[in-house]
Amino acid sequence: MIIDCHGHYTTAPKELQAFRDEQIKGNDTPAPLKISDDQIRETIQNGQLKMQQDRGSDITIFSPRAAGMGHHIGTGKTSEVWTDVCNTLIHRVVKLFPKNFIGVAQLPQTPGVPPSNSIKELERCVNEFGFIGCNLNPDPSGGKWTDPPMTDKKWWYPFYEKMVELDVPAMIHVSAACNPAFHTTGSHYLNGDTAAFMQCLTSDLFKNFPTLKFIIPHGGGAVPYHWGRFRGLAQDMKLPPIGELLLNNIYFDTCVYHLPGQELLTKVIPLDNILFASEMIGAVRGIDPETGHPYDDTKRYIEQLALAPDDKARLYEGNARRVYGRLSSQLTRQFAAST
Amino acid sequence: MIIDCHGHYTTAPKELQAFRDEQIKGNDTPAPLKISDDQIRETIQNGQLKMQQDRGSDITIFSPRAAGMGHHIGTGKTSEVWTDVCNTLIHRVVKLFPKNFIGVAQLPQTPGVPPSNSIKELERCVNEFGFIGCNLNPDPSGGKWTDPPMTDKKWWYPFYEKMVELDVPAMIHVSAACNPAFHTTGSHYLNGDTAAFMQCLTSDLFKNFPTLKFIIPHGGGAVPYHWGRFRGLAQDMKLPPIGELLLNNIYFDTCVYHLPGQELLTKVIPLDNILFASEMIGAVRGIDPETGHPYDDTKRYIEQLALAPDDKARLYEGNARRVYGRLSSQLTRQFAAST
Repeated sequence: MIIDCHGHYTTAPKELQAFRDEQIKGNDTPAPLKISDDQIRETIQNGQLKMQQDRGSDITIFSPRAAGMGHHIGTGKTSEVWTDVCNTLIHRVVKLFPKNFIGVAQLPQTPGVPPSNSIKELERCVNEFGFIGCNLNPDPSGGKWTDPPMTDKKWWYPFYEKMVELDVPAMIHVSAACNPAFHTTGSHYLNGDTAAFMQCLTSDLFKNFPTLKFIIPHGGGAVPYHWGRFRGLAQDMKLPPIGELLLNNIYFDTCVYHLPGQELLTKVIPLDNILFASEMIGAVRGIDPETGHPYDDTKRYIEQLALAPDDKARLYEGNARRVYGRLSSQLTRQFAAST
Repeated sequence: MIIDCHGHYTTAPKELQAFRDEQIKGNDTPAPLKISDDQIRETIQNGQLKMQQDRGSDITIFSPRAAGMGHHIGTGKTSEVWTDVCNTLIHRVVKLFPKNFIGVAQLPQTPGVPPSNSIKELERCVNEFGFIGCNLNPDPSGGKWTDPPMTDKKWWYPFYEKMVELDVPAMIHVSAACNPAFHTTGSHYLNGDTAAFMQCLTSDLFKNFPTLKFIIPHGGGAVPYHWGRFRGLAQDMKLPPIGELLLNNIYFDTCVYHLPGQELLTKVIPLDNILFASEMIGAVRGIDPETGHPYDDTKRYIEQLALAPDDKARLYEGNARRVYGRLSSQLTRQFAAST
């Protein structure tokens, strides 16, 4: 089985954006969203499901559009209403396609509001919807980086306690940049990944939460490319080796859109810490003229690597089942429901 | 000849920091700095010069300590006084060791103050000191990213006009982070590199300044590792291929502290766009237990790559002579002065 741990509902019916546009205009609670099951079926069957089938993956760990989270827009109330709508829509996708998608929650974060505010929605998504993780935004301000680092005890720890209790990991994923210094998918995403990794490296977060798990997407931002730098920085700070310090808790996905990047990733990061992902349909949608194939068809690169069958099986499936503690039982439930 | 394009005077005598500490306390114009030639000789002979000789490089393109620039501290006046002192010290190093160092200028940037404010200091450093480039900070706020992007016409173009007129390139280099979200050398440096590259990608900067040249340090931040992503993003935006769009103007250094990173860099980036560098004595100072050699001995990695002799010569010397338009004539002058 091939599990893609990083997919967003980027093809949602246009009614969703119309709802959001109302919010952006200042109306926190627009008229209830009306999207039919047929509309959802159409967007999925012609979108993510078609590409799963074309490319040969089986299950996508699926969440609302990351750039759409827009935690910097409006107030805490705005984010709560928006997040409810987005997560409910993911739940409907999963109910319609239980053999192909499994849910991950957006959180109603807002700059200046403690993340404990997101506990209720996480519980709802996990306990009522069967979601198996969440996307945690290390910078709800959208590129101004005004909130405390992810390692701040008072700010973040109550939320981590709930994650650990529920046995769900978080993908560390910023949303759209509203700072003109950053391009959302070209620099803000990658910079968010790198910043979060370094926050973890310089803290005792995982000493305090030994079972807390983070997935750093986009191949870990700049981290694997600069693995020597990070190993050396940890060493200069008299910290334990990175493996011991971070690799029981931090995982990287394979959203790297060319073969040399995938070669590097799998060369420097232990195979136990890499989860297959493509982020399709996502940031990069074209065909690479150098290969004749889509940039984000990441499976194609991985198939070109000289991985042992057991390593490949872990990267494609085993690691995801281990990192997402609720994945296997939830899949069993979803498969049973679909027969 | 081996030219290291990225070295900072990180070993300056302690009087320099004492001067700066006075400024940080609020005194913009402390008593004049008193450092003797012997003090400078000692720090260089036991520091950067010793390491040049140990590792087998010949010339270092040398500038004030990057984390020390601290453009966010104080006012425009604070930065002007501090920059004068730092650049004058580099000039003294170069005068004492004209066969081993060649100068690059710090700039008196300050958040909220237009970079045209730095023109006078650039002219002084180039015309009076024989410096061949400058370090340009894309985020003088130190991690708050409050100034306009590097591609903003009104803000940045007057400074670029002067760079082009003087035929000097800029290394894009942030300084210390004062935002707790970022670690200076672990995430802010790399994120600054990636952000600046993406700003250039999404602008017509090099159409307007076809001879403007930027060096993106630290191996280009996250860029080469995500080369497929950047190629794909440019393509989705209907821009010309990145080679055409950016690679007549943007260059990457080799400050990547492990072999797999260097392999990737030289595999995906054309050899004409890579300049040898180590940033020693810099961010990472330890010995890599995996190799038994210093992390930042970047020449050692490059020697392990299967580069053709001509490619290696360009990476070590030819590209630097081409990108730094004043390098060759200045070196000739310095060599003549030293005999």
